[in-house]
Amino acid sequence: MAPQRWWGWGEDDAAVTLPPGALEGLRAELDLPAAAAPRTPPRLEDVRVGEPALSEGVLALLAGLVGDRFVCQDRLARISHAGGKSYPDLARRRTGEAGAAPDAVVFPGSHDEVARVLDVCAAERVAVVPFGGGTSVVGGVEPLRGGFPALIALDLARMDRLLGADRQALTATLGAGATGPRAESWLSTQGLTLGHFPQSFEYATVGGFAATRSAGQASTGYGRFDELVLGLRCATPAGELTVKAFPASAAGPSLRELLVGSEGTLGVITEVTVAVREAPAEQRYEGFSFRSFEEGAEAFRLMEQAHVSADVARLSDEEESRISMALASTGSKTERAGRAYLRARGHDGGCIAIVGWEGAPEDVARRARLTREMLRAGGGLALGRRPGASWLRSRYVGPYLRDAMFDNGVMADTLETATSWSNLSQLHKRVRDALNESLLARGTPPIVMCHISHLYPSGASLYYTFLARQEVGSEVEQWSAAKTAASEAIVAGGGTITHHHAVGRDHAPWMAREVGELGLDVLRAAKARLDPAGIMNPGKLLPGAGPTAP
Amino acid sequence: MAPQRWWGWGEDDAAVTLPPGALEGLRAELDLPAAAAPRTPPRLEDVRVGEPALSEGVLALLAGLVGDRFVCQDRLARISHAGGKSYPDLARRRTGEAGAAPDAVVFPGSHDEVARVLDVCAAERVAVVPFGGGTSVVGGVEPLRGGFPALIALDLARMDRLLGADRQALTATLGAGATGPRAESWLSTQGLTLGHFPQSFEYATVGGFAATRSAGQASTGYGRFDELVLGLRCATPAGELTVKAFPASAAGPSLRELLVGSEGTLGVITEVTVAVREAPAEQRYEGFSFRSFEEGAEAFRLMEQAHVSADVARLSDEEESRISMALASTGSKTERAGRAYLRARGHDGGCIAIVGWEGAPEDVARRARLTREMLRAGGGLALGRRPGASWLRSRYVGPYLRDAMFDNGVMADTLETATSWSNLSQLHKRVRDALNESLLARGTPPIVMCHISHLYPSGASLYYTFLARQEVGSEVEQWSAAKTAASEAIVAGGGTITHHHAVGRDHAPWMAREVGELGLDVLRAAKARLDPAGIMNPGKLLPGAGPTAP
Repeated sequence: MAPQRWWGWGEDDAAVTLPPGALEGLRAELDLPAAAAPRTPPRLEDVRVGEPALSEGVLALLAGLVGDRFVCQDRLARISHAGGKSYPDLARRRTGEAGAAPDAVVFPGSHDEVARVLDVCAAERVAVVPFGGGTSVVGGVEPLRGGFPALIALDLARMDRLLGADRQALTATLGAGATGPRAESWLSTQGLTLGHFPQSFEYATVGGFAATRSAGQASTGYGRFDELVLGLRCATPAGELTVKAFPASAAGPSLRELLVGSEGTLGVITEVTVAVREAPAEQRYEGFSFRSFEEGAEAFRLMEQAHVSADVARLSDEEESRISMALASTGSKTERAGRAYLRARGHDGGCIAIVGWEGAPEDVARRARLTREMLRAGGGLALGRRPGASWLRSRYVGPYLRDAMFDNGVMADTLETATSWSNLSQLHKRVRDALNESLLARGTPPIVMCHISHLYPSGASLYYTFLARQEVGSEVEQWSAAKTAASEAIVAGGGTITHHHAVGRDHAPWMAREVGELGLDVLRAAKARLDPAGIMNPGKLLPGAGPTAP
Repeated sequence: MAPQRWWGWGEDDAAVTLPPGALEGLRAELDLPAAAAPRTPPRLEDVRVGEPALSEGVLALLAGLVGDRFVCQDRLARISHAGGKSYPDLARRRTGEAGAAPDAVVFPGSHDEVARVLDVCAAERVAVVPFGGGTSVVGGVEPLRGGFPALIALDLARMDRLLGADRQALTATLGAGATGPRAESWLSTQGLTLGHFPQSFEYATVGGFAATRSAGQASTGYGRFDELVLGLRCATPAGELTVKAFPASAAGPSLRELLVGSEGTLGVITEVTVAVREAPAEQRYEGFSFRSFEEGAEAFRLMEQAHVSADVARLSDEEESRISMALASTGSKTERAGRAYLRARGHDGGCIAIVGWEGAPEDVARRARLTREMLRAGGGLALGRRPGASWLRSRYVGPYLRDAMFDNGVMADTLETATSWSNLSQLHKRVRDALNESLLARGTPPIVMCHISHLYPSGASLYYTFLARQEVGSEVEQWSAAKTAASEAIVAGGGTITHHHAVGRDHAPWMAREVGELGLDVLRAAKARLDPAGIMNPGKLLPGAGPTAP
């Protein structure tokens, strides 16, 4: 697979540009300057990056373990591993800054090589950042040294094999470095699917999914990745930790659930045994309209609690529905007719939902019938397949669009939370208002939109997208103000600080309010046993985990 | 609620006796002496129990915290808390031995009282055994002192309140001491149910369900208790640990999954927030017959993997089916007709399955149709409602029968495991053979029977019952030989050492093979942080956890 652009998402030939109409719309909504020149990324050779700090001796040790050509110190490798794909990550690199890049990028080829690299790094006091697809949007792969003199990125790209599939048990064991497409492509040769499709699907890896408790677009149906993981193999500085893939067990606290979500701070997940399914013969996606976000959320709640939910269930709030329709507008006759249809039924200015089912055709037909009944009973208006097909086509386009927005001076970022159904409406408004107010206060009036993306019997997730005119030269400060306001609103409003983006560096300051100081101490105790030197991904997950806080 | 019999299960007026026909059958199968006098339990005053060892000073401190009348040192309280309800527990008490009884039984009335009792016990070096319904069958509440000079049982019976219900989110918060019937009775006033019905339902508590990763008879449909728990409040010697009840979160390793299954070794679970459901308007249970265990298991696998499983799904192996029919036999005309029906269809000597659905009538009808289709396609023969109704009537009778068997000189015990579908048949035979061989070798030819009781997409549980003529005077040694042989077969055969009975004392020797030495060390590190003095439930879960191994 070709490497991603070091300064943005994906590969050059998959990049998108904003249609002229959309750009016009954003100009008006976000108060953009009339016709600014596009912001272009710097040239690789102009990016500021420190000299590599690994001694020749340590480099030789590492090369001895994995082979010369799998220890890289070149500019492209280091800068490509200088962080993940969060807005501040990209803002830094697009403004020519990669000062904290790893001293080297090491590509181990096996679990045993990972284990030996960790031994060397612990002995030589080298911090280790496990690196899968590098798609973290929370600073999860930021090369924070935590007081250590040197740091490597441990890139698992070579460990991307299908290690086994059990068709009777519907499980598969995959190398941690397998990307979404690679895993799906192998499984499809067995007629199987993992069914895990986060927006980062094209680049993110199975190990990363497990390490971050990833949720994908179809996780309402297939289950979150933390639910799909049955077994794990993990290399830690203290040795190997293997969790057997039992269907269920009552043998004490779950070590699986300790490693899942550990974000590289306890060790390196090298193999994952996951639940898979028969590859669906049919995918069916449809649109529905609701008169309000509250009406749609209530219909979704009843559907989920009746255990007849669609596999994909998304509900945009009024603002997201309005903006999506405006950006997609072509002014065609069909579109005008559609709007008239909605208006005539009191759905003007309402909310768009996308629901989708996957499986055997008779199964999809049966389940779609149940879902439709529930949604209609809850006030939903069926919009047919067109909105579903349109969503499915563009399901991975978000991060590409973010780059295109950056080109045009627009900050675009997303964040997410989850809460109980009874608290959903309150939290929805509270976080929206916090984002709006924080960006208005900086003189950059934003667009703030939200959708429900994952349903659970007891509650749902809220996924926010916010756009604003960039403060050129203060991109990170501007983002940080909005992010902080939203995070405070989430925690004060009874939401989890993260539903599926994980903690990384960006959410660590809120972890004490999420799990309590004693809860953090328990995690620190586990880390001290598995990673006594503290070399594993310093500054992530646990506030102040490293010898020096970042 | 009246207290249970200190030497057996349940209350006197719910006791059962073996029907004469059943006793005759057991005599023949188990080579019992022709007409031995029934074994009667000893009188309370004859039971050997040590002098209480708590100093007056500590007793006064405890009484000051919870009130005089909630610190009990009387003979009945101490002997009733001298262990759980495992076969060796009952064998010891029925043979007049309660030497290790707690020095006192303390009944706290609130989370804060629990916290203060733990403070006193840590300071005064008193071991603490958290005690819910006392129904552990794995030595989970055995009063092992772990080197401490004194020990209390901390009985949560007073903390049995419904603390709140959220009808929109379908969650409820319950005091840890609420028993199954008490929780269900409260929830039913709100039209809700927890849907958790283990065989210990009548006495076991919500806190115990959480602390042991309990699974109930309907957990295939409602979910295991570890899946129902959303939030927890836990008092530990190091302070309060509270897990918030988010529907889902990606905020790091799961502390919920560390406390669930901790079996009182990390602290005392005082409150549990659980997922509940609308109380079912209809319950429908039916019987099916399969020609063999393998045929039935394959039909169950396909049903579960198609996500159309019944809420209850049990499949007895050939031996369990044979014995159940023999013990229930009345020789009636209906029964003879039934047997002829099975024989005519090649199902003679086959396996009986019970499947059940709960919910709204239209939901039950729709789901039952799907299940029946799958089971018929898999070779199942519908036996109608009679076997289902019969199973439902006697769903909690097992432990009462065990007492009646003891009266008649029969050892009866159960054990369970789980494994993948692809490994199920091999493990089924291996554990069965190990039990058979170990008891045959002692000259007590057993009956060994097994059923699948819980289905998962990747595998299923196996639940064994074994009966044999008691070796009078060596009851515990006899049991221990069979238990050890089965446990070795389970671990060597790729099963989990426990599917839902938990670890306690009895499974602790196999924990290293279940989770690895490093896995145990991580749990010990968490315990050291939360319980630095090591007073919490010594000798359970972790082999060699206490200052001195038991």
